[in-house]
Amino acid sequence: MHPDRVEERVEAEAVMPAVPLTVEGSSVLHQMFRLKWAAWRALSESARREAVAEAAAALGEMEPAGERQSALYSLLGHKGDLLFVHFRQSFEELGAAQLRLERLKLADYLEPTTSYLSVVELGLYDSSLRLYRNLLERGLRPDSEEWAKEVEGTLAQHRKAMAPRLYPSIPASRYICFYPMDRKRGGAANWYTVPMAERRRMMHEHGEVGRKYAGEVKQIISGSIGFDDWEWGVDLFADDPLPFKRVIYEMRFDEASAVYALFGPFYVGIRLPARELIVFLG
Amino acid sequence: MHPDRVEERVEAEAVMPAVPLTVEGSSVLHQMFRLKWAAWRALSESARREAVAEAAAALGEMEPAGERQSALYSLLGHKGDLLFVHFRQSFEELGAAQLRLERLKLADYLEPTTSYLSVVELGLYDSSLRLYRNLLERGLRPDSEEWAKEVEGTLAQHRKAMAPRLYPSIPASRYICFYPMDRKRGGAANWYTVPMAERRRMMHEHGEVGRKYAGEVKQIISGSIGFDDWEWGVDLFADDPLPFKRVIYEMRFDEASAVYALFGPFYVGIRLPARELIVFLG
Amino acid sequence: MHPDRVEERVEAEAVMPAVPLTVEGSSVLHQMFRLKWAAWRALSESARREAVAEAAAALGEMEPAGERQSALYSLLGHKGDLLFVHFRQSFEELGAAQLRLERLKLADYLEPTTSYLSVVELGLYDSSLRLYRNLLERGLRPDSEEWAKEVEGTLAQHRKAMAPRLYPSIPASRYICFYPMDRKRGGAANWYTVPMAERRRMMHEHGEVGRKYAGEVKQIISGSIGFDDWEWGVDLFADDPLPFKRVIYEMRFDEASAVYALFGPFYVGIRLPARELIVFLG
Amino acid sequence: MHPDRVEERVEAEAVMPAVPLTVEGSSVLHQMFRLKWAAWRALSESARREAVAEAAAALGEMEPAGERQSALYSLLGHKGDLLFVHFRQSFEELGAAQLRLERLKLADYLEPTTSYLSVVELGLYDSSLRLYRNLLERGLRPDSEEWAKEVEGTLAQHRKAMAPRLYPSIPASRYICFYPMDRKRGGAANWYTVPMAERRRMMHEHGEVGRKYAGEVKQIISGSIGFDDWEWGVDLFADDPLPFKRVIYEMRFDEASAVYALFGPFYVGIRLPARELIVFLG
Amino acid sequence: MHPDRVEERVEAEAVMPAVPLTVEGSSVLHQMFRLKWAAWRALSESARREAVAEAAAALGEMEPAGERQSALYSLLGHKGDLLFVHFRQSFEELGAAQLRLERLKLADYLEPTTSYLSVVELGLYDSSLRLYRNLLERGLRPDSEEWAKEVEGTLAQHRKAMAPRLYPSIPASRYICFYPMDRKRGGAANWYTVPMAERRRMMHEHGEVGRKYAGEVKQIISGSIGFDDWEWGVDLFADDPLPFKRVIYEMRFDEASAVYALFGPFYVGIRLPARELIVFLG
Repeated sequence: MHPDRVEERVEAEAVMPAVPLTVEGSSVLHQMFRLKWAAWRALSESARREAVAEAAAALGEMEPAGERQSALYSLLGHKGDLLFVHFRQSFEELGAAQLRLERLKLADYLEPTTSYLSVVELGLYDSSLRLYRNLLERGLRPDSEEWAKEVEGTLAQHRKAMAPRLYPSIPASRYICFYPMDRKRGGAANWYTVPMAERRRMMHEHGEVGRKYAGEVKQIISGSIGFDDWEWGVDLFADDPLPFKRVIYEMRFDEASAVYALFGPFYVGIRLPARELIVFLG
Repeated sequence: MHPDRVEERVEAEAVMPAVPLTVEGSSVLHQMFRLKWAAWRALSESARREAVAEAAAALGEMEPAGERQSALYSLLGHKGDLLFVHFRQSFEELGAAQLRLERLKLADYLEPTTSYLSVVELGLYDSSLRLYRNLLERGLRPDSEEWAKEVEGTLAQHRKAMAPRLYPSIPASRYICFYPMDRKRGGAANWYTVPMAERRRMMHEHGEVGRKYAGEVKQIISGSIGFDDWEWGVDLFADDPLPFKRVIYEMRFDEASAVYALFGPFYVGIRLPARELIVFLG
Repeated sequence: MHPDRVEERVEAEAVMPAVPLTVEGSSVLHQMFRLKWAAWRALSESARREAVAEAAAALGEMEPAGERQSALYSLLGHKGDLLFVHFRQSFEELGAAQLRLERLKLADYLEPTTSYLSVVELGLYDSSLRLYRNLLERGLRPDSEEWAKEVEGTLAQHRKAMAPRLYPSIPASRYICFYPMDRKRGGAANWYTVPMAERRRMMHEHGEVGRKYAGEVKQIISGSIGFDDWEWGVDLFADDPLPFKRVIYEMRFDEASAVYALFGPFYVGIRLPARELIVFLG
Repeated sequence: MHPDRVEERVEAEAVMPAVPLTVEGSSVLHQMFRLKWAAWRALSESARREAVAEAAAALGEMEPAGERQSALYSLLGHKGDLLFVHFRQSFEELGAAQLRLERLKLADYLEPTTSYLSVVELGLYDSSLRLYRNLLERGLRPDSEEWAKEVEGTLAQHRKAMAPRLYPSIPASRYICFYPMDRKRGGAANWYTVPMAERRRMMHEHGEVGRKYAGEVKQIISGSIGFDDWEWGVDLFADDPLPFKRVIYEMRFDEASAVYALFGPFYVGIRLPARELIVFLG
Repeated sequence: MHPDRVEERVEAEAVMPAVPLTVEGSSVLHQMFRLKWAAWRALSESARREAVAEAAAALGEMEPAGERQSALYSLLGHKGDLLFVHFRQSFEELGAAQLRLERLKLADYLEPTTSYLSVVELGLYDSSLRLYRNLLERGLRPDSEEWAKEVEGTLAQHRKAMAPRLYPSIPASRYICFYPMDRKRGGAANWYTVPMAERRRMMHEHGEVGRKYAGEVKQIISGSIGFDDWEWGVDLFADDPLPFKRVIYEMRFDEASAVYALFGPFYVGIRLPARELIVFLG
């Protein structure tokens, strides 16, 4: 093992906390629906027109960029026909958005296939290591009140500085790619027992790949531990879908992904603005 | 290996029993339902009003805090629209609660998606180790009648002293987070072959994290070995959902979770009192 | 490794057969059904009364203790509303029982959720090891005709002596707990490559725990290799459900369970005699 | 490791090909259906009579033993009510058989639950090893044209000599047991990296157990790599179902099964000749 | 370990990039449907005739070979009755093809069972290794602009030279075999941490087997990382289905498959030209 890693390991086994500083922002709900096309087509044209108008009006109110925004996508394949992505200020507001959709006439023709509940999140490995080392050098103990106060202060600073990334608008890109993921805890590869400094190194290497594609792909990470069945949700946005494949493939060779990542199902959609709903729904 | 652990292992391989003292309380049933919204909306307004009134009255009787209490939550996402949590004095009473719901007019519009059956449980690692060591020092053997009598006596004391925690009221918090979990038995990490003292140490470390969040999150653990498909059910209650994520994420770095825990699906709901049912159901 | 185990292993690698003597009895079918409550309630009262009377009469004929017996249970949770357990003399008779239920008027309101097919079985590790050692000492080879004859003779004796346990009545207990299970064959823990004597030792230890609960829990083991998707089915019967949890939890620390057992879904039901069917079905 | 195995391993790592000679015969389709009993019973008696007559006539034409034969079984449990097994001369003919069933009036009351597509197959380990060793001794290389020609010649001989086993009639036995299986490729146990001679030894040992039950159980193996989700399908036929359990249990202790086999779901059915269809369908 | 491999490993641990050059072509969507036969047959003959005529006309327009081509197959077994394979120039066009099918009258009788979204892809291991070694010898660093430019230039050349394979017509063969697959990342076998040169060696060996069957089986590989739940989709086309089994079985002994491949479900279909739709649909 590389001497640096040995040193890190020793440090870790002393008192370096394992949990990275993390700041949270918007509450996020992904809703995937299958359209009951046969029943929908069986409706009279006027009833369909009315239902589309109502749905387009509701979506039209929700889709402008801002702190409370929803976007609609048509999905490719059998996993669903429509994907709604809601960014809100709280779970209460997500519940209200969900209920609002459910009360549309169109809802009678939508069958939920799956969904994902999460909160926009930034994991701050660099800052964590810097702060923890500094506090340790000052002789503080992780279970002390002073430590907690310093951590809370640092988090508050980050929340303020990172507000635009914590409460983002939904990128206007043509395509979305959504998937959930876990960090492995089985067998020899256990992310949660890897020392902080080593995790930081891997996350840094991982981020390098992301930065190469920054001009083509926008990424929003949300945390879902305690909220849904995987640990994180990943949303990628781009005007061409090929970079989705390229960035994820290239990342798969990173140690953080190759060894420690488990991926859930992938969903690919094409943005469907309120004004085009009438075209899609015929 | 640390000398203490070696010693523990030797002790364990002698006659220290592996099974921790455990006391049980309320019988618990979680019921998740999807609402057949389209059929519900197709009902006449008077029929809906009548069904809601009947359901709200039934729930109103069951929701006051006490030894036989039920709480209703609206769920976020596709896993269900409504979650009923029943705490009762026996499985018979749970069966009766289940049947009572089934006989509501509203039941025609509820489709069960999943459920969970368990019993409130406290695992007493500290007390177990203290008692077992004491009995071993007194020269008793775990398969003796006297041992069994001492164990039964200690359990009886705990059941009495811990009655409020064994038969808890459902916290009035705004949010619930429920998930089932297992202790791993595959491969190198096998919770059930770890010596008692080492498991106690890990549970203690695990508990320390929980205590940090005690002011924000209330936790009720129920055992489900022999009753349902996972070994334990965990209910968390809080007025803000973010601490659910924080406490579970922080715990995930504990040895007990990082190495030995398997988690099932997560369900997040918002408390829906009987008086608000009419609003939710439109 | 303990010298005894080494010796056993050597013995095993010589000619000691790996397959324990096993005797079989009743053919068993578990059938889980969900009741289509909404459709059932939509029936006229007289039609329901008639269907219940017919079903109660059929069940009434099948439920008396004996060699051909069926028992009905109401299930807790979403896995089903009703569980029928049939003990018969052959698979043909199980097919007939299944078809008889299917022809009841009530069957129009029953939707099968799952089922389990097996045969009551006793694995005779003690007797196997005794017999095989004796035959080996007499110089017989496992592939000889004389060996086969001796084995068949011993099995015949056991079948006769154990007939009451091979063709049991269904215990009259208030609660049932059913689950299927496998012995592991993956990775380091492979039950099927463990020498016979070591498996016998583990089964003995396992049995010891069972005997502690003998007064509270009755157990019937059935084999399902070749019949259903797990290797064994386990039925536990008791008047209080807590001992289900206690005995299974305690057993989970046995080497046979901790290391070598895989468990399927668990089903818990409350006995529903024919005369109470009318109450349950409203 | 035993010297013979070492030698085999060396041989294997040289040029001994890994793929055993394999010959194929009949195309096979298993179709499992659930009967929509409620809808079926709702039909008028004359409509049912007509549908049964039509189905019985079609089955009557297909069930006589021969190169194009179908057999019907009633299944035990919830996995389906009816199992059709089709043996044909090509996949085209299987498609035609499938379509013919679909066009019966009875088909409106049949819901497919699962199916299995495969081709009768004999793996020739003994012959492979003999031929490959002989060719290697003659100095041929596995990638030479002459090698390919010798292999093709040997296969042609086997296809001719084994035609009765490659294009078998469906045994007239009362019971069928069907299950799919894989050879493991995960972790330490990887069937596909085991040297040919060692696989032959294991298959031989495996076959020995089968031969013990030859009088009670008939077996047909079909290959499904590239056709369905497991690698092989196994059909067992017997007049008493107990030997299904006994032979599979005994085989589970073979190295080939204990270490290298993964089993899929098991289906058990009772033969239902065309003339008894009317009885089964009421 | 063989010296060559050691050397490769050393090289890999220096700066040899891990990601092979990859070029992409047609966007591909597989759609599997079950036909609602009962509802279809319940239609009047004229309505069916009209729906078939409309569907056959649409398919007739899409099935001629070219850059935008669709092919229809009837599936064997329960996984679906019909498989549509669409090759297009973009995901937008796939969305349009999907929507066009959805608007056919026939669509009311089609139920999607599954689907697969991918992009035709060629992984260029030989070229990658040659280029990367050349650039390293010239002293370039993988994170330099010049490196990126050289890579982009090489990719552009390959895209041009390989256009016919990147934008293929759908082979006119009678049979199709489709399955998705992954490269393993769990435990000891992790494709994504294997040095480039070793992966190239394995892919070469793998390709050798493919070439043996080139006369009988045509293969199209598509990449689906970021698009669907497996990493690659494999389409095989042949006029006889047996070579599907033979080539996949032979490949299973390759190191690339035996050790590093995970396979998803297999789908086998028979080509159904527009003009035969009327026969299939009765």
